[in-house]
Amino acid sequence: MASRRIVAVIGAGHCDSETRERAYEVGRRLAEAGCIVATGGLGGVMEGASAGAAQAGGLVLGILPGDDSRQANAHVTVAVATGMGEARNAILVATAAGLIAVGGEYGTLSEIALALKAGKPLVTLDSWEVDESVERAGSPEAAVGWLLGKLG
Amino acid sequence: MASRRIVAVIGAGHCDSETRERAYEVGRRLAEAGCIVATGGLGGVMEGASAGAAQAGGLVLGILPGDDSRQANAHVTVAVATGMGEARNAILVATAAGLIAVGGEYGTLSEIALALKAGKPLVTLDSWEVDESVERAGSPEAAVGWLLGKLG
Amino acid sequence: MASRRIVAVIGAGHCDSETRERAYEVGRRLAEAGCIVATGGLGGVMEGASAGAAQAGGLVLGILPGDDSRQANAHVTVAVATGMGEARNAILVATAAGLIAVGGEYGTLSEIALALKAGKPLVTLDSWEVDESVERAGSPEAAVGWLLGKLG
Amino acid sequence: MASRRIVAVIGAGHCDSETRERAYEVGRRLAEAGCIVATGGLGGVMEGASAGAAQAGGLVLGILPGDDSRQANAHVTVAVATGMGEARNAILVATAAGLIAVGGEYGTLSEIALALKAGKPLVTLDSWEVDESVERAGSPEAAVGWLLGKLG
Repeated sequence: MASRRIVAVIGAGHCDSETRERAYEVGRRLAEAGCIVATGGLGGVMEGASAGAAQAGGLVLGILPGDDSRQANAHVTVAVATGMGEARNAILVATAAGLIAVGGEYGTLSEIALALKAGKPLVTLDSWEVDESVERAGSPEAAVGWLLGKLG
Repeated sequence: MASRRIVAVIGAGHCDSETRERAYEVGRRLAEAGCIVATGGLGGVMEGASAGAAQAGGLVLGILPGDDSRQANAHVTVAVATGMGEARNAILVATAAGLIAVGGEYGTLSEIALALKAGKPLVTLDSWEVDESVERAGSPEAAVGWLLGKLG
Repeated sequence: MASRRIVAVIGAGHCDSETRERAYEVGRRLAEAGCIVATGGLGGVMEGASAGAAQAGGLVLGILPGDDSRQANAHVTVAVATGMGEARNAILVATAAGLIAVGGEYGTLSEIALALKAGKPLVTLDSWEVDESVERAGSPEAAVGWLLGKLG
Repeated sequence: MASRRIVAVIGAGHCDSETRERAYEVGRRLAEAGCIVATGGLGGVMEGASAGAAQAGGLVLGILPGDDSRQANAHVTVAVATGMGEARNAILVATAAGLIAVGGEYGTLSEIALALKAGKPLVTLDSWEVDESVERAGSPEAAVGWLLGKLG
């Protein structure tokens, strides 16, 4: 199969500058490793990860809740307009080979839960501490390194 | 509008007998209060709540992950076959006026997260302790009482 | 399984009074035969079929495109808020044991197509003439009679 | 916005060699014009259009019905696993700026209907003749030319 490895970066649509910087760094490192970076396509952590991946020349996939592709942030290369609201979280999880959570609110928690249910590799950076099975990383570099190791 | 109040009972597809008994009791009390009881339509807590509601003569709505209505448990009156897998959790949350979580695993956690994001009234019985905003009840009676009070 | 037979009545959200009358008659006859009548939950043909079924004392299921149950017409007993826009058409088809199309525009055509793909029994009343495999009825009575015969 | 224009090529999962050749030619010409080519990600017309686009060096988006990206055909660059069955047709239509139907069966008809409802530019090649509002082209070249003209 020609399809390239997709890693999802999940997090809130609004975030502080430090969290945005971490998301950017995660996106950049994933793109440099040859991954397609997927997000929910909107602002905050989604925008940060998209910007980092785009800066590194990577493909950026945005899986939007609405049915209008123009809602995507400016760094998205491929905008998928699901028109399905929060149910698009399930699509993002199913599409990703692995996930990195950066901060995050309740929407992110729903994605973490679905990723755990699906058994997808998942690592968190200052995000929800659901249970001890979830890997926590101390830096974008460590998060990306751990996930790439898991994906082999 | 003629449509009747729908309360979702969420929990795992497999559970111990004590948890099933609690789900049954929650379903029974909701139906006695005139609510339609909605679940994911399968086994475990879903089956228990459905059985309790059916025993009390209530309407039981099952919102199934698959596309075959015959997957519904034996107590479901109205089986909605979504064919959407885990994305059906978002439909269950959007459909419910309020939710009661009984125990639960990762799928339940995704529903709790979506309910919190949507600002739906939610009470838990021996379930995920996401944060202090979540109401915890000590018994089925207390859970149903609290939720009905919230729904007014 | 306790779940009751669900028949979908599909058609446009706006229609003339003659078409609405036919939808009403279809809904009424289905409810009298013990079926749950399912529609997309909004106006026009959906409202007409819902009203007919409710008048006969039947259960009326509305599978809404939006995420707010209050969008359901006044005759819906069980309002499922999918939040999935046009994708809810696929849920309606999967949920129904059989379908009756009354008039209809492009949304109805998409449901007819999905019903044909799924091999669900389908009968039309002044609706799209997709191909010769589609049964056409000359009256609500004939449409309901044909479908109930198919469902056995 | 950085996101690139997406055109959907819709058609059946199994087709004869002439239809596959037309789909290939449509995909190739769209990719040469700089469009991302989107399909349902499986075989037949979907595979043909994907192969043509990939041969021209284009990006190929596959929006799959299942929840396993490995179901995508070998030419898909970005595989989105929706896990939503036929409801993914609605996502494909919402995602596309315009659509070209090549042959097709009932699933394609559902997509044509949704595209007409959404008012998306649509052109057909030996496909369903729904009504006179639908543009019909006599060749892949004419279909792509007409659609690119509409998209401006």
